[in-house]
Amino acid sequence: MTDQIITAAMLAIGDELLSGRTKDKNIGHLADILLLSGIDLKEVRIVADEEDAIVAALNALRGTYDYVFTSGGIGPTHDDITADAISKAFGVACEHDAEAMKLMAAMYERRDMPFTEARQRMARMPVGATHIANPVSTAPGFTIGNVHVMAGVPQVFQAMLDNVIPTLRTGTPMLSTAVACPFGEGDIGTPLGAIQKAHPETSIGSYPRYLGQSFSTEIVVRARTEAAMQAAAEEVRQMIETIRKAKVEENHSAEA
Amino acid sequence: MTDQIITAAMLAIGDELLSGRTKDKNIGHLADILLLSGIDLKEVRIVADEEDAIVAALNALRGTYDYVFTSGGIGPTHDDITADAISKAFGVACEHDAEAMKLMAAMYERRDMPFTEARQRMARMPVGATHIANPVSTAPGFTIGNVHVMAGVPQVFQAMLDNVIPTLRTGTPMLSTAVACPFGEGDIGTPLGAIQKAHPETSIGSYPRYLGQSFSTEIVVRARTEAAMQAAAEEVRQMIETIRKAKVEENHSAEA
Repeated sequence: MTDQIITAAMLAIGDELLSGRTKDKNIGHLADILLLSGIDLKEVRIVADEEDAIVAALNALRGTYDYVFTSGGIGPTHDDITADAISKAFGVACEHDAEAMKLMAAMYERRDMPFTEARQRMARMPVGATHIANPVSTAPGFTIGNVHVMAGVPQVFQAMLDNVIPTLRTGTPMLSTAVACPFGEGDIGTPLGAIQKAHPETSIGSYPRYLGQSFSTEIVVRARTEAAMQAAAEEVRQMIETIRKAKVEENHSAEA
Repeated sequence: MTDQIITAAMLAIGDELLSGRTKDKNIGHLADILLLSGIDLKEVRIVADEEDAIVAALNALRGTYDYVFTSGGIGPTHDDITADAISKAFGVACEHDAEAMKLMAAMYERRDMPFTEARQRMARMPVGATHIANPVSTAPGFTIGNVHVMAGVPQVFQAMLDNVIPTLRTGTPMLSTAVACPFGEGDIGTPLGAIQKAHPETSIGSYPRYLGQSFSTEIVVRARTEAAMQAAAEEVRQMIETIRKAKVEENHSAEA
């Protein structure tokens, strides 16, 4: 763990995410895990299975953030072009990796399944990449430079991510606390803005929920120290109490 | 409807999407609706509530695609900076819109709620923008150039999108058909690649599902004409039959 801020981006790859056929589950999972690890997820992009789109997005992200995590496109079919695209982005050849071939050949042998040409495609990776172990279905993901390339199937993505996280530099985890607020953002906007201004070392977010009749809000205070977080959260609770009292008085005078 | 391909991108805005606190529901919904409308969603980006990040992403996307749809950051609190950022991207002022102020003042009057300074923030939009009506909670979204700016709360996003879609140029809808395949991608990869090559006017995707023990696949054939789609789908079904027969024979000879 370092005092530095460590940043990350995700690149989710796949036509199926853009056609609505698959509702992505990996972005939210990665966000949860990175938060716990003290790595700030700053940007996500979703692109189609098109080489130019993948290369352009990957190069933009890997130049901007400490880490990039990709999902999807490393299976055995013709639309799985992630390994080729990543190789192109790094300017290296994409080849069958000897160690991956051995691992996979042994697995298919054990399962009495043919190690087809299509399955062998999954052993391809950029020259110089290192493996990300896949305890679910053997075919490895890979790391090259600051880019971690993982599967799109959520069970496999999650298992691979578990193997990547311990290898990363992590920052001071962002702490967070939530304060439930029965009032809508329109009631709290101005005083909450003042609290944020008074506590620049925190990041205060308000998340409205629409409950059919009216909005309520969840107010989340995030900071890298417990003291900073609690100080701002206490002011948020006082603000809610002040608004509650003002509303009670308003009702009383309306009834009087 | 035109014969042209109409493209679109989405920009989802909000720290809460990147911290994992909120699991996005708008991307999948937009993808579903655009598919039905014959508009190709080509890219999605998720960025934080940071002006520079929003401006950079918006300018990249609006210059590349026919339409851009944004979600989030148009509420009344200090972290709602989308209207300002969009104005900056277009190089115009962000001002309280007279018509929006009138609509919202009347709504809060009816509900006997104060039209606070914070609520008035929601009437701000780039000069020259037109409204996107919000039947759920009144405060409008807006359209400027090819950019449609909508709320992040899914009920409001969906209602606003319903009002935007009829105003758009739409292309020839992409038709799709799914073929269930009991075999994993490793079994079908090579022959499926050959079918894709023989049917360049279609886009054939295969989506693996991991069922605890083995992978099965859903094969999706997409095309802009029924004939092209059916011709490729028929070859996919024949391919599955061929693999099935080969497996049966394999088992017989193994038992013999």
